[in-house]
Amino acid sequence: MGKWATLSEKTRRELLQARAFLSAVAEPPAQALARFVAERGARGAVDAILRGRAAAPVLAEVEARCADVSGERVLRAGEEAGLRLLVPEQPEWPDEAFAELAGAREVGLPDMAEPLALWVRGQGGLAEFTERAVAVVGARAASGYGEHVAAELGNGLSEAGFGVVSGAAYGIDGAAHRGALSAGGRTVAFLACGADVDYPAGHGRLLRAIADQGAVISEYPPGTPPRKHRFLVRNRLIAAMGRATVVVEAGARSGAANTANTADLLGRPVLAVPGPVTSQNSVGCHAMVRSGQAVLVTRTEEVVELLTPLGVSPAQEVAAGSRATDRLHQDARRLHDALTAVDSAGYEELARDCGLPLARVRAVLPELELGGFVKRTECGWSAITR
Amino acid sequence: MGKWATLSEKTRRELLQARAFLSAVAEPPAQALARFVAERGARGAVDAILRGRAAAPVLAEVEARCADVSGERVLRAGEEAGLRLLVPEQPEWPDEAFAELAGAREVGLPDMAEPLALWVRGQGGLAEFTERAVAVVGARAASGYGEHVAAELGNGLSEAGFGVVSGAAYGIDGAAHRGALSAGGRTVAFLACGADVDYPAGHGRLLRAIADQGAVISEYPPGTPPRKHRFLVRNRLIAAMGRATVVVEAGARSGAANTANTADLLGRPVLAVPGPVTSQNSVGCHAMVRSGQAVLVTRTEEVVELLTPLGVSPAQEVAAGSRATDRLHQDARRLHDALTAVDSAGYEELARDCGLPLARVRAVLPELELGGFVKRTECGWSAITR
Repeated sequence: MGKWATLSEKTRRELLQARAFLSAVAEPPAQALARFVAERGARGAVDAILRGRAAAPVLAEVEARCADVSGERVLRAGEEAGLRLLVPEQPEWPDEAFAELAGAREVGLPDMAEPLALWVRGQGGLAEFTERAVAVVGARAASGYGEHVAAELGNGLSEAGFGVVSGAAYGIDGAAHRGALSAGGRTVAFLACGADVDYPAGHGRLLRAIADQGAVISEYPPGTPPRKHRFLVRNRLIAAMGRATVVVEAGARSGAANTANTADLLGRPVLAVPGPVTSQNSVGCHAMVRSGQAVLVTRTEEVVELLTPLGVSPAQEVAAGSRATDRLHQDARRLHDALTAVDSAGYEELARDCGLPLARVRAVLPELELGGFVKRTECGWSAITR
Repeated sequence: MGKWATLSEKTRRELLQARAFLSAVAEPPAQALARFVAERGARGAVDAILRGRAAAPVLAEVEARCADVSGERVLRAGEEAGLRLLVPEQPEWPDEAFAELAGAREVGLPDMAEPLALWVRGQGGLAEFTERAVAVVGARAASGYGEHVAAELGNGLSEAGFGVVSGAAYGIDGAAHRGALSAGGRTVAFLACGADVDYPAGHGRLLRAIADQGAVISEYPPGTPPRKHRFLVRNRLIAAMGRATVVVEAGARSGAANTANTADLLGRPVLAVPGPVTSQNSVGCHAMVRSGQAVLVTRTEEVVELLTPLGVSPAQEVAAGSRATDRLHQDARRLHDALTAVDSAGYEELARDCGLPLARVRAVLPELELGGFVKRTECGWSAITR
């Protein structure tokens, strides 16, 4: 939009009220409503709804709550809860990330729709954050291994200048956030309840730390309790906000697999971390790699490589520890293998032992001597231990 | 060849002597010699060599040992060591497996050549065995996890009617052989020394068990000591004998990676088992999957699937544990999520809570009641715990 700065205070408040109303009046993802808002704008859509002048699918989505919702009241509840409302009309709105969700809604993908507003607890700069953000997700009942890897990834991505997006759940999500926080990086948690609700309860402190160093965000209005289906609905926002989604541990059936599917639908790369084949926690990751949905990754550098334009930061393949004898040609290696540091051997014996012509043995041994691999002894040749 | 049965006893002995001579006179892989034998036949090649009538590259390969080697003597040494000589002229020779090696030699791939003869300690039927054999290889310094997976694979492949080929080394190789033996299956070990040499020394008992239930095989004549380069040379036979090669654990630099490369060169599928990204033992496996050289596999069924004609034995994807509520449509799930077993809620309250039209709530709740998901109470509706 970009023209937020030019709007009057009154217009801004009206827009915020309209968006607050929209965020509360229907249960996301409200596809008909999102389409209606995209066509009419927020204020136009709200006016039409309040006068009952919208198509039946839109009215069906808002019918149950319409009479009870007041945009101004929701907005104040948010302010009292320490949340601010971020709306698409503001420059901080991450346009690109959510344009894909609107596109998915337009082509009729089920359960896909852009959020109509976001409630934010924490810092600003979401659009900028999104330009270099990676979603790290995985099982709640993660293993110690999975949490370790998630924390390393969160930390490594932060150090590489990437933001970490996740869902603040126990297990992988929490470890990824913590890893990012420990590197002093920015991290964003999307909740399946109001952004003012500490869920899971045991993550109250973690959520405050995330808000301090990044943001806790929700499309649900303040006070909304978590519900099972809301986790799946929320996952689409995590997938949309990451330039890629890394799945650290996921069972055969998991919310992480759902987030990965959404990332895939949105054309974002899906990466999966392998684990022991004996662990049920890695079954989902391995299945994604086997089906071709996900690329296998083992280290932060491999994730960064996938997100970086070609030729900029290729992950160094782990250096295969090279040995001095690697540089030797085949005949030299055969001769070197045949010698020991203890015993000596003569030309003829070595020729037979290695199946090499005598002349070749006489030519190669001095080469090996020059290289410091073998030495002459009173009775022939022996190896030099290195 | 197929005409072994029609040959006279004398001709057979001559062929065996010629092949025994060839197996001892040059250090494998002797590409020029293998080509010469392919052109002239074993006896023709030996005659020409003994009279010095071969091209220079062939003579260079045999020069060092030619004067000392007697085919008859090598043959007797093998018999005394309890080995029999298997030659390409016999019907038991696994033609198909080694034809690929000859092809690789012909197109000039370095270090590729078919074996000129094989020394066997153990059972017969190698050609038949090779039709359904899988190579299972990996690190010597394997982890407990790797050995567990290798043993499971060896066992599972045996139960599925596949033979297991490996190198009898400590670590993955040994575990794969043991797994096959424990299932009463057939298993073959290729050694990088004479088939009569117990190497590694600590695997003497294992080698005897393999010989009892399968075979211990080498292209090196009896008594040949192991040498570093011989392990790499030997690896090509393991790769050629397996219809696929499964790498269980492999460091960044490993013999298993070498076997996998050879299998790849020969057009055989390479499969790799993932492991913890924190384990150096799995770095090679992950790199193979990342580069596209290997397919990730986690269970025997997935290996078998790759070896079985399409549609015969697809690995069942691990059943994603389904839940009763999976069958519910989206609105029903929203309503079900909103109810608890303890409290009751009325139609209007549920409509607001779920963002569903009242009429829809009135229609769906009886559906859920019929399904046994919810029940009517004095004050409205509540969930049934299942």
